[in-house]
Amino acid sequence: MTQNRYDDPDFFAAYSGLARSVQGLAGAPEWSWVRPLLPPLARARVLDLGCGFGWFCRWAAEAGAERVHGIDVSERMLARAQLENSRAEITYERADLETVQLPRSSFDLAYSSLVLHYIADLDRLLGEVALALVPGGVLVVTMEHPIFTAPTTPAWLEVEGRPVWGLDGYAREGQRIRDWLAPEVQKQHRTMSSLFASLRRAGLTLTALEEWTPSAEEVAGHPDWATDLDRPMFLILAAHRAPTVVSS
Amino acid sequence: MTQNRYDDPDFFAAYSGLARSVQGLAGAPEWSWVRPLLPPLARARVLDLGCGFGWFCRWAAEAGAERVHGIDVSERMLARAQLENSRAEITYERADLETVQLPRSSFDLAYSSLVLHYIADLDRLLGEVALALVPGGVLVVTMEHPIFTAPTTPAWLEVEGRPVWGLDGYAREGQRIRDWLAPEVQKQHRTMSSLFASLRRAGLTLTALEEWTPSAEEVAGHPDWATDLDRPMFLILAAHRAPTVVSS
Repeated sequence: MTQNRYDDPDFFAAYSGLARSVQGLAGAPEWSWVRPLLPPLARARVLDLGCGFGWFCRWAAEAGAERVHGIDVSERMLARAQLENSRAEITYERADLETVQLPRSSFDLAYSSLVLHYIADLDRLLGEVALALVPGGVLVVTMEHPIFTAPTTPAWLEVEGRPVWGLDGYAREGQRIRDWLAPEVQKQHRTMSSLFASLRRAGLTLTALEEWTPSAEEVAGHPDWATDLDRPMFLILAAHRAPTVVSS
Repeated sequence: MTQNRYDDPDFFAAYSGLARSVQGLAGAPEWSWVRPLLPPLARARVLDLGCGFGWFCRWAAEAGAERVHGIDVSERMLARAQLENSRAEITYERADLETVQLPRSSFDLAYSSLVLHYIADLDRLLGEVALALVPGGVLVVTMEHPIFTAPTTPAWLEVEGRPVWGLDGYAREGQRIRDWLAPEVQKQHRTMSSLFASLRRAGLTLTALEEWTPSAEEVAGHPDWATDLDRPMFLILAAHRAPTVVSS
């Protein structure tokens, strides 16, 4: 099963203090890039894989979704979601994305924010998601970029007085152990080609591939975001399940 | 116009000594990955953008192509192509890929090997190529990987005794000056997202995205290729022009 650090009290406390936890979608720098990739939400059936505190579920419900189903492995996060981001249209479910079974042809949109880099069996999950979408349905995903996940030991070094990201192990897929909010967080590194192939095997066609970079205004307001001009951290993908062809 | 180093005698001499120049396709490590992406060649009309010594043109003609048109900016390379890789089905043309005009709906396959990273106006060229393909036609491309082209100053550094690739400037697209066979070779860096967007704007749908990596046997035979396990050098793309839909 997925390592669930979110129910570890120290990790949870640290995560709860992040801008994206306090301010919701507005606190996530990549949100303004994700928003234009979403289909119309009015009357849509929406699935959120790794819904966390439920910020996106609530946003989708308020944007007119008919029903929103949020899944997360963390009991603590779901408790906060129920408390703070509850709406009549929303159901929350505790489940492990490594093993979750989804209803067939039930959603117009599947969304997942910064979760897929924890998943060991991505083929299984994407296959499940593809079948959970209606024909023509859309998957919108953010995840850590392969350049960000690859290194054996992530480190900024220096060449000619400029910071450079020390990249190695790009082709060596699999587990990476990271210190992020807590020691020894398990993540999964995959190459770009591997992600593309997984989507295709699932029957999903890639329609957007974006690498978040901060604008000049954003760098002025958050000087530490400038690192993302040197190496991308967030990968944003949109893909769709082929619509059913109706012969005339 | 594209910088044409291939007609510089010293560069040409150095390039002529590379395995891929001496042995043709068999000397190009990425060829075994490209081959399965090609459509059937029998009776195909083939375009080779940056055909160099004409190794691929000859291979395509021998594989049964009806006609093969090779384009290159280098007079010296075309002279060698005419001399060594001439076939009745092949025509060679000297033209600059920054400005070339291609006939409409004339090719089943457009192929380009390690050339697109020299092109400044990729949107123009891909638009031209998309229209040169017949509906359902295929583009197969190899090019330098964005991770390889990005750095201000390419360098291998060391972290914990392991070599790491010093990555910076990933989001800063545009010209890079490199020493490769000769000083000050001009190349163009583009991000993965930018390549994907260019293909889509041209009306081409990406069907394969591969990052060449050597097998264990290849590394045993060429120990210096092991660097490609740490950072990819070759990006291989296939894309197709949508087939015409015939309504019944």
